[in-house]
Amino acid sequence: MKKTLLATLIASSCILPSQVSAQQPIEKWRIFETTLKGPSSGNPFTDTQLTAEFINEQDTVVVSGFYDGDGLYKIRFMPQKEGRWNYAISSNSKQLKGKKKGHIVCTPAKPTNHGPVMVQDSVYFGYADGTPFYPFGTTCYAWVHQNDTLIDQTLETLSNGYFNKMRMCIFPKSYNWNLNEPEHYPFEGEALKDWDYTRFNPKYFQNIEHRVAQLDSLGIEADLIIFHPYDRWGFGSMDRETEDRYINYLIARFAPYKNVWWSMANEYDFMTNKPAEDWVHYLDMFAKNDPYGHLSSVHNGSVVYDFSDPNITHASIQNANTFEAKDYLKRYKKPVSYDECRYEGNIYLSWGNLTGKEMVNKFWQGVCSGGYVTHGETLSSDTDKLGEKSDEVLWWSKGGVLRGESPERIKFLRDIVKASPGHLAPTVIYEWWMPYPCVTYNEEYYLLYFNRDQPASIYLFLPETANYNVDVIDAWDMTITRLDSTYSGNSLVQLPGKELTALRIVKVEE
Amino acid sequence: MKKTLLATLIASSCILPSQVSAQQPIEKWRIFETTLKGPSSGNPFTDTQLTAEFINEQDTVVVSGFYDGDGLYKIRFMPQKEGRWNYAISSNSKQLKGKKKGHIVCTPAKPTNHGPVMVQDSVYFGYADGTPFYPFGTTCYAWVHQNDTLIDQTLETLSNGYFNKMRMCIFPKSYNWNLNEPEHYPFEGEALKDWDYTRFNPKYFQNIEHRVAQLDSLGIEADLIIFHPYDRWGFGSMDRETEDRYINYLIARFAPYKNVWWSMANEYDFMTNKPAEDWVHYLDMFAKNDPYGHLSSVHNGSVVYDFSDPNITHASIQNANTFEAKDYLKRYKKPVSYDECRYEGNIYLSWGNLTGKEMVNKFWQGVCSGGYVTHGETLSSDTDKLGEKSDEVLWWSKGGVLRGESPERIKFLRDIVKASPGHLAPTVIYEWWMPYPCVTYNEEYYLLYFNRDQPASIYLFLPETANYNVDVIDAWDMTITRLDSTYSGNSLVQLPGKELTALRIVKVEE
Repeated sequence: MKKTLLATLIASSCILPSQVSAQQPIEKWRIFETTLKGPSSGNPFTDTQLTAEFINEQDTVVVSGFYDGDGLYKIRFMPQKEGRWNYAISSNSKQLKGKKKGHIVCTPAKPTNHGPVMVQDSVYFGYADGTPFYPFGTTCYAWVHQNDTLIDQTLETLSNGYFNKMRMCIFPKSYNWNLNEPEHYPFEGEALKDWDYTRFNPKYFQNIEHRVAQLDSLGIEADLIIFHPYDRWGFGSMDRETEDRYINYLIARFAPYKNVWWSMANEYDFMTNKPAEDWVHYLDMFAKNDPYGHLSSVHNGSVVYDFSDPNITHASIQNANTFEAKDYLKRYKKPVSYDECRYEGNIYLSWGNLTGKEMVNKFWQGVCSGGYVTHGETLSSDTDKLGEKSDEVLWWSKGGVLRGESPERIKFLRDIVKASPGHLAPTVIYEWWMPYPCVTYNEEYYLLYFNRDQPASIYLFLPETANYNVDVIDAWDMTITRLDSTYSGNSLVQLPGKELTALRIVKVEE
Repeated sequence: MKKTLLATLIASSCILPSQVSAQQPIEKWRIFETTLKGPSSGNPFTDTQLTAEFINEQDTVVVSGFYDGDGLYKIRFMPQKEGRWNYAISSNSKQLKGKKKGHIVCTPAKPTNHGPVMVQDSVYFGYADGTPFYPFGTTCYAWVHQNDTLIDQTLETLSNGYFNKMRMCIFPKSYNWNLNEPEHYPFEGEALKDWDYTRFNPKYFQNIEHRVAQLDSLGIEADLIIFHPYDRWGFGSMDRETEDRYINYLIARFAPYKNVWWSMANEYDFMTNKPAEDWVHYLDMFAKNDPYGHLSSVHNGSVVYDFSDPNITHASIQNANTFEAKDYLKRYKKPVSYDECRYEGNIYLSWGNLTGKEMVNKFWQGVCSGGYVTHGETLSSDTDKLGEKSDEVLWWSKGGVLRGESPERIKFLRDIVKASPGHLAPTVIYEWWMPYPCVTYNEEYYLLYFNRDQPASIYLFLPETANYNVDVIDAWDMTITRLDSTYSGNSLVQLPGKELTALRIVKVEE
């Protein structure tokens, strides 16, 4: 991305939650925001209640306002329906009651705006406008807590279009290679531990929402991680009242961003201070208070969460066996995302030293098993091999640049999936002993992957009712070669005898 | 191997079960054989009973004789103890009763003769003389059923010293690439199915024992597979009486060969005509009737056998996850051998198209998890990609030549293990999240393997009570590089950041 493009991107995203007047029309799934002057004395975060009711014919949406510092309160609303929305503000503050009514007009979404991602047909993801969403995520846990130069570099890297989802933490991260303090803190008080948990630091959240908006303008979903165990400030062990206030503050500020997902945890089971009912409670809070019903899940360390909770929209899994996606699909009947399958890297930690080939392999195995996979990178060239004193920037947490071999190949796969006719479901067209991962769209289209095996031929059981073209895909060299023949029924197909080979099998139009 | 060597090999092995006179001394663990003329009328296989009792002080061993055709009966005996053994022959035949007594003198074993392999220290293999045995097997199911030219080629390949165990079927094999008829049949009668199951064909078994002896002279154990499902002749579905007679005939002929192991099945669970109690019965037959107690197991297709049967000496597993060896060790407290972990190959069958790298990886994972692994190869260059009409010789069944990349690397690993100070037991010296396979000999010696990961450094938890030299092993390029420093206690070790890396960590002698 050229500097001019980056500048444009940052500028445009800055006005996303724009301070529009009630007369200015709001595009569907964009943010209406109104700023109100209110009390700054006492504790505005706890003393002042502020809500607004938005009404369009039969639809009523109640949103919470929030205190943004300097005596300013904000109400944000994402209209999901075109037309006129009347609104009325309620507050326990006289000052805020002053401007209590208004209306907005919601106009149709522009072609590049597909709305928030939701669950489609039970086991898939799709945008609100019906466009399928095929997540190809990456992970930069603490990128929003770095300095602006580094953040700009991360955005520039992301603008290359490898990924369309970002897993990122609301709270800062404490871990090897992550020993710098964040640029801001979420609460008023003094680092490291002397916080006034009743007072948020609006700058902290303004920064995050700015980054969320920037991701949105790059077509990237923000999978926001609410709690995580890598903490030296105490944010992993707040009391219930503080946690609830924090969650409601997040909802009031971030829920109107169409690209937001809620991830209750990175590695819930590693937060040993939180009993099982805490996660149920957090999920319930989001389900009740998020007016838009954003996607919501709980991500594990060792023990995969039980995704049968109806407040969970999709399985968010840490496990290296991405080929098991079909088993999770079957068990939970919800979309399956392997949000950690280990990292392309070379560090001394066994979760962080996959080869690029193996990362690409895990993507293909996941996708061809009906799931999705999230990338991460921990490639280090530092001499401090433990990251204990190191300021080295590893993509996995801080962002910056990508050094690995997998992102380009992941994009290659993403482009293939994007060009598929629709959502792909697990199937079997190769039945010998150990089936290879295969997905289909209505027997019109198949994607079959041979793992890291090297068959020089394969015998397929295709439907006899149609003819198929067969493309041989080299997932590493990123080539697609159409075979001369067409195939139907039981078919012997010649292969190059190389690892990371796949087939795309497409019905011939009559 | 030069032609002269091969000629010597075949010649020398021919005299192994030599027709020695009672006066000629017999080396310990070699075969005493005496040939007796007896009745050839009626059915000598069923009418004539013949046994011999060998007595050395307190030890009495009863062996069965067998009919070898042409009116000749044989008694074979493998003395396991030096000194004089008196013997007495019993028979229901007057003719055989004639020569009913004699004695042999058993002399010490020569240095290259370590005796039969047995279980050592509960979970290991060792020769009878105490020398550890580290199995590095291969598989040529039907090699003894091919023509002599091909058999000679197989033996020549084996003489390269890659392997010290061979899995091979007593019965011929029917499968793709295995559609030729065997050179001989085990019973009298007419192929394909018109057999007189009461009459063995001695030539068939003479051929096999000749091959077993040839393997022995190459230092290779013969893991004889008693039953298997790949059958077009009916040998997989004989009646109980025939099966028992067959087993007793095998024991009488083959048990005196020191390098024999008994494998009840290749893929017991794929022989759906045999109920579970059949396998218990076969094991019991061998346990009761084999006077030498050769190693005995049951090999699976999909479902691993329950090795808790006390008649089973070791776990013989088909499964690709060789890194689970430590779990089987723990569960059964018996030696663990992955006798099929898929095949280095390129055929259309998913069990037969591993890359050489992945085969090597499975060997290292198995060995560094406290188990052993058996090789197999299905590399095809044929144009008939299904092997349905093909006479192409694939190593996995017919033998011949090896084409793969793994055998040389397996030998490299075998040489490393052979040079270890003793049997290796699973341990952990790397504890982050996902431990790497590691085995140790008494904390004096470690073999630690990083799978196909590429760490550029590793942080080890070594004992603080000693200093260690560290060799970095490239399991693919077959190099061993000693690091300059020595290490003790918690240690950061630099690595090349390449897949298929291992460490050999050896205590510094004070």
